[in-house]
Amino acid sequence: MNNTITLAECAERLRSADDVLILTHGHPDGDTIGSGAALCALLRRLGKTAYLCPNSEITPKLRPFTLDFLPPEGFEPGFVCAVDAADEHLLTPDMRERFSGRVALCIDHHGTNSLYAGETCVDADAAACAELIIALSKELGVPLTQDIALPAYLGLATDTGCFRYSSVRPATLRAAADAVESGIDFYSVNRVFFETRSRAALAAESAVLANTEFFRNGTVAVSRFSLEDAASTRADRDDTNNLSSVLRTIEGVELGVLLREEKDGWKVSARSAPGVDSAAVCARLGGGGHAAAAGATIRAGYEDARAALLRAIAEELGEL
Amino acid sequence: MNNTITLAECAERLRSADDVLILTHGHPDGDTIGSGAALCALLRRLGKTAYLCPNSEITPKLRPFTLDFLPPEGFEPGFVCAVDAADEHLLTPDMRERFSGRVALCIDHHGTNSLYAGETCVDADAAACAELIIALSKELGVPLTQDIALPAYLGLATDTGCFRYSSVRPATLRAAADAVESGIDFYSVNRVFFETRSRAALAAESAVLANTEFFRNGTVAVSRFSLEDAASTRADRDDTNNLSSVLRTIEGVELGVLLREEKDGWKVSARSAPGVDSAAVCARLGGGGHAAAAGATIRAGYEDARAALLRAIAEELGEL
Repeated sequence: MNNTITLAECAERLRSADDVLILTHGHPDGDTIGSGAALCALLRRLGKTAYLCPNSEITPKLRPFTLDFLPPEGFEPGFVCAVDAADEHLLTPDMRERFSGRVALCIDHHGTNSLYAGETCVDADAAACAELIIALSKELGVPLTQDIALPAYLGLATDTGCFRYSSVRPATLRAAADAVESGIDFYSVNRVFFETRSRAALAAESAVLANTEFFRNGTVAVSRFSLEDAASTRADRDDTNNLSSVLRTIEGVELGVLLREEKDGWKVSARSAPGVDSAAVCARLGGGGHAAAAGATIRAGYEDARAALLRAIAEELGEL
Repeated sequence: MNNTITLAECAERLRSADDVLILTHGHPDGDTIGSGAALCALLRRLGKTAYLCPNSEITPKLRPFTLDFLPPEGFEPGFVCAVDAADEHLLTPDMRERFSGRVALCIDHHGTNSLYAGETCVDADAAACAELIIALSKELGVPLTQDIALPAYLGLATDTGCFRYSSVRPATLRAAADAVESGIDFYSVNRVFFETRSRAALAAESAVLANTEFFRNGTVAVSRFSLEDAASTRADRDDTNNLSSVLRTIEGVELGVLLREEKDGWKVSARSAPGVDSAAVCARLGGGGHAAAAGATIRAGYEDARAALLRAIAEELGEL
């Protein structure tokens, strides 16, 4: 049964709903939190009671965007709506436990949405779920006030690398223009999410760069980040989230592979340019993924892991 | 005499001009080259003969955007127009020599424009000169075809750090949306200018980070980049252009100062958050600039230069 609905139908459902609780996905990013907060503010402008379900996995940078929207104790929702969550198993454990099978509406931009909700409004061409929230505000005739626009901007900017990714479409930029027009301090978002890195994150990046070996005329870069590096740089998961993509940003590199030490071996993270198949390299190591980004795990010491990786790359691309 | 004209008047001037030669500023950036190329393409769509004056200081990344627009030998312009060049002395030496006093029209977004041209169309609120070129295409009724849209996008994106800076306004994002809508491969621009760094640039950044000292609870960061560092990283001017802003991107840092060795001493580059006055620090060292970004030169060895800098910071902010 296909339960997808149009944006206009989605607006109708929201207009007739009340006591709304909005769910965001686990390991939340700026788009799920921003879309949730923006939708909550939008519903309140329509005179509804609406809250954002507390996300137990929220990070310090995102928490400020939720503070105006947390429910009072004992709030019992009349309508549960999820944003940017492509499947029920992507909700946090406590949300799953409380609301599994009870999500009435899901608003999402993932083409892979499993249609787990009662009804789903999905636009896989949208660069961010927040694009849909801004479109909904138009559909509902609600002016884009700053309480809606700031979290919506957060979603748009964070899901597109500040409008850098190929996923950006004219509607993404126009939605951002509408948000900026409300007079929000959009630069405060850009500064925190795009112009600031922790000392540990910078140290981790330096360590990876210092360990980099180049092959095939500088087109292949291989590096490592050991548990020792993690300890000496004091980098946590937040600090090292983007570490595997650093090698691919080096001019001329078409395949960048990071070997990252975990307790039980070395995790392989491959990132590549069009024309180089990361998934094929990782498949030779028992892993998989997409052509542009793939992974595997090698349960061995560093020298053996490195040798196995170089062999896999050579088998795929030719001699190193 | 105020010779500024409106956008509509500017469009009129272009409509009646022909054999147009477009000048860009020296040490060209993406906005002057992008605006120049976009204006050239726009004039050709109007049926005009138009060329981009060769810029002797063009960089490899920008050159491809000029190739369709270079004039044949012996081309004698009937109308000379400058873009994004706030003063005649900012043109390249050969342009100054040939066209000083002969620039009929200047299109610019610098509030500091010296009004050196016969007539000047300036909008200091535009985040990029390319914003004005896109507005001109509307004014002139010329559809934003890809030949116009791609260089215009280059200008918009490069002058705003890919729409990250506080200078972005709704019109900037809407101009970008219009450009993207033409179907250009905008991501190819973003990839080259925002997602790729040379090995030398990365090595230089790592060297600066490795040399960083923190003061006042991590709010002040001071580092150096010596001639030896420049030699060992093989970093040239292009690679080290943004080096002085790296320290300010570290979480918690409100004042970042780089001491960079030149042949005759150490160049001070200070960058600061609102509330911390870089210019005041640099004034104590005989330099100057803006509150957010300032500079000075200290003619001394490293230890003396560092001591003088720390003294100036302490005098301004209190004990380190």
